[in-house]
Amino acid sequence: MDLKATLLNCTLKNSPETSNTEALLHKLINLFEGLGVECDLIRVVDYNIPFGVRSDEGPGDQWPDILNTLRHSDIIVVGTPIWLGERGSIAQMVMERLDGSYLDADPRTGQFPLYGKVAGVAVTGNEDGAHSAASTILFNLSHFGCVIPPNPDCYWVGEAGPGPSYIEARGDRHLYTNRTARYLVHNTVYLAGLLKQHPIPTDLAQLDREAQAESD
Amino acid sequence: MDLKATLLNCTLKNSPETSNTEALLHKLINLFEGLGVECDLIRVVDYNIPFGVRSDEGPGDQWPDILNTLRHSDIIVVGTPIWLGERGSIAQMVMERLDGSYLDADPRTGQFPLYGKVAGVAVTGNEDGAHSAASTILFNLSHFGCVIPPNPDCYWVGEAGPGPSYIEARGDRHLYTNRTARYLVHNTVYLAGLLKQHPIPTDLAQLDREAQAESD
Amino acid sequence: MDLKATLLNCTLKNSPETSNTEALLHKLINLFEGLGVECDLIRVVDYNIPFGVRSDEGPGDQWPDILNTLRHSDIIVVGTPIWLGERGSIAQMVMERLDGSYLDADPRTGQFPLYGKVAGVAVTGNEDGAHSAASTILFNLSHFGCVIPPNPDCYWVGEAGPGPSYIEARGDRHLYTNRTARYLVHNTVYLAGLLKQHPIPTDLAQLDREAQAESD
Amino acid sequence: MDLKATLLNCTLKNSPETSNTEALLHKLINLFEGLGVECDLIRVVDYNIPFGVRSDEGPGDQWPDILNTLRHSDIIVVGTPIWLGERGSIAQMVMERLDGSYLDADPRTGQFPLYGKVAGVAVTGNEDGAHSAASTILFNLSHFGCVIPPNPDCYWVGEAGPGPSYIEARGDRHLYTNRTARYLVHNTVYLAGLLKQHPIPTDLAQLDREAQAESD
Repeated sequence: MDLKATLLNCTLKNSPETSNTEALLHKLINLFEGLGVECDLIRVVDYNIPFGVRSDEGPGDQWPDILNTLRHSDIIVVGTPIWLGERGSIAQMVMERLDGSYLDADPRTGQFPLYGKVAGVAVTGNEDGAHSAASTILFNLSHFGCVIPPNPDCYWVGEAGPGPSYIEARGDRHLYTNRTARYLVHNTVYLAGLLKQHPIPTDLAQLDREAQAESD
Repeated sequence: MDLKATLLNCTLKNSPETSNTEALLHKLINLFEGLGVECDLIRVVDYNIPFGVRSDEGPGDQWPDILNTLRHSDIIVVGTPIWLGERGSIAQMVMERLDGSYLDADPRTGQFPLYGKVAGVAVTGNEDGAHSAASTILFNLSHFGCVIPPNPDCYWVGEAGPGPSYIEARGDRHLYTNRTARYLVHNTVYLAGLLKQHPIPTDLAQLDREAQAESD
Repeated sequence: MDLKATLLNCTLKNSPETSNTEALLHKLINLFEGLGVECDLIRVVDYNIPFGVRSDEGPGDQWPDILNTLRHSDIIVVGTPIWLGERGSIAQMVMERLDGSYLDADPRTGQFPLYGKVAGVAVTGNEDGAHSAASTILFNLSHFGCVIPPNPDCYWVGEAGPGPSYIEARGDRHLYTNRTARYLVHNTVYLAGLLKQHPIPTDLAQLDREAQAESD
Repeated sequence: MDLKATLLNCTLKNSPETSNTEALLHKLINLFEGLGVECDLIRVVDYNIPFGVRSDEGPGDQWPDILNTLRHSDIIVVGTPIWLGERGSIAQMVMERLDGSYLDADPRTGQFPLYGKVAGVAVTGNEDGAHSAASTILFNLSHFGCVIPPNPDCYWVGEAGPGPSYIEARGDRHLYTNRTARYLVHNTVYLAGLLKQHPIPTDLAQLDREAQAESD
């Protein structure tokens, strides 16, 4: 089956500066491609993305292009650095822009544009914060309609306090990160294939009507 | 298809004290039963569950019974109150006890006991904290092997500050909560049926070996 | 005593669009001014602030001006909307830019530029997420050197799910928010006055040397 | 000046099992005692503390004794392990029990029992989650009335994934942890001394009345 994955690199650094998060995403891409999945890597900071919560914030906004790519993907992986113990501001901005996708629901079923896609997350930081970054991103993506597989996150962090980052610390040789990279890739690919053959049929519009009938 | 859901009520209050979280879980049970799903509701605080991170903490520990029920479920819903803006201590304790399940992996595939089950979460509080409670519970459950569907959480919270809880505030008539209750139930049921027919085949043991080969 | 407070509005909306967070910050300003504190309100999104983690990201960067204002303040209040259950991307960006302040420590004591200032936080959202937004902002600010008073946060959120925001919902008449606004203002002012007279003497540079002596 | 610090060890393990969190707390105690502060270390799990949110949950409840010790302290340090990326269930339970302290406000000023005490936090885990554990504990404590100094947290965590804990990993020789231990101790001691001489005068009862006058 033909599957497509889009990986969003939410580093704060413009190209061509070295991005540790990108290094980890390349590891995922190699694994995805090994399973025959076509990959698209987008470094969000290189685009003109205004702050906001709509799918189109006006002239010059390049978010609609990114959103369009996500709509044509089966798998979405958000990669983010940790800053101050939390997901970076670009990752937060991406979630804010995706908030606009609720308004573009399928007129028949009420399903949002990302419904039934499978999501994963990759995180790098020199220390602590991966759980917070990963759990909030995955939770947001599940609201937009994504399915979260078992072991949906792959991260590398070092010991407490300042220190070397993923590339310098040879995180590419870190067992836990390499193991979870494989779990993430194999589980997202399996579920994406399964859901492509058996799309989620839930009629949100109908459920809304039922909910309204028992609400104030 | 015969599906079974287990709902864990992580209220701090012993039976028969009124539990707001239980009231919300009963709403989910009605919806599950309407779709032919057999439900089991467990009020964790009523059992003797010692603190710890193993699946069996010794004589008198009743966690093994609960874990056994979870193993025989297709759907797992964790219900928790919010206290101090976070998931309650019983919910945290349940996650800690589930930590022991990693050690009971399938000898052939390395899959953990909850692998491929579908999870949801229900949260009540008089105010703020549902996102934190829901996202951390779902993230932990995904690590144990659960699949998280779109719109996996159902919650009720009131306005900022102290105030009435779910039952008193007539949260049972709150549109958002009633809508997301239906999303949660329909999506978990669909995915649980799908995964029962098409179990996740990922061989974690094999992936571990591959990861070791490229790690220090 | 002459005290100065700087309030950063981290709304995503450019002036002159209506900002709910600004409405709440104006309530704080009125209270501060009633106690004789001079206030400066900065709407961060109106400035050219590049993504990054340094105090000066090059030509056109207006962060150095904001940082300078913060350095000359006794009280710092960060106001943020909630988006997707978390602090907004501008608030995250502000924390990232403050990360650069570690490098500008006092050469004698090692204290960072914000050491001994008193911090508070104001949050608005149509629902859930205030605890997460407030706790992470205050925690970050404490790392930069700020003192956090009792009851350092003031927020307004509505019931679960979409709904009206602070202004439309008449959050200005919400008791909990009005009460905590006063706690925040009175406690920050008292502590800022006390610390101005009795600055924190901690010699971080000396403590670093002692730590190095017992570390690898 | 005579100052007293109480350190709560929120490990899940009963005495005399080895507690990594306790090892880190002993490091803090040595530093506190070096500054002439009297220290009291309480291992919460060794006491009979029922789940609940009141200051006294009935016969056999030993929380009132612990609360009494906290009331007679100038400095409070909560030590917790990380489990599943979050503060442990005992730490969560301690916060829940402290929730009852709001009801025991000073009849004249409305100040809660912990008002004006200075708080810090110590966290150990084999990996990721220290920011979440520390920030939520400190935020809760600030609501109960505690003042949070600059650099209020001291933690040790290892690299991503399972691995050795604080003691085994020789975290006692980790520079960042040893540095922040000193920051925490010196800043809490300075502020506790200052606040003992100049107690926070805020009249919460009066501010409540003012807030009610402008609220619905």
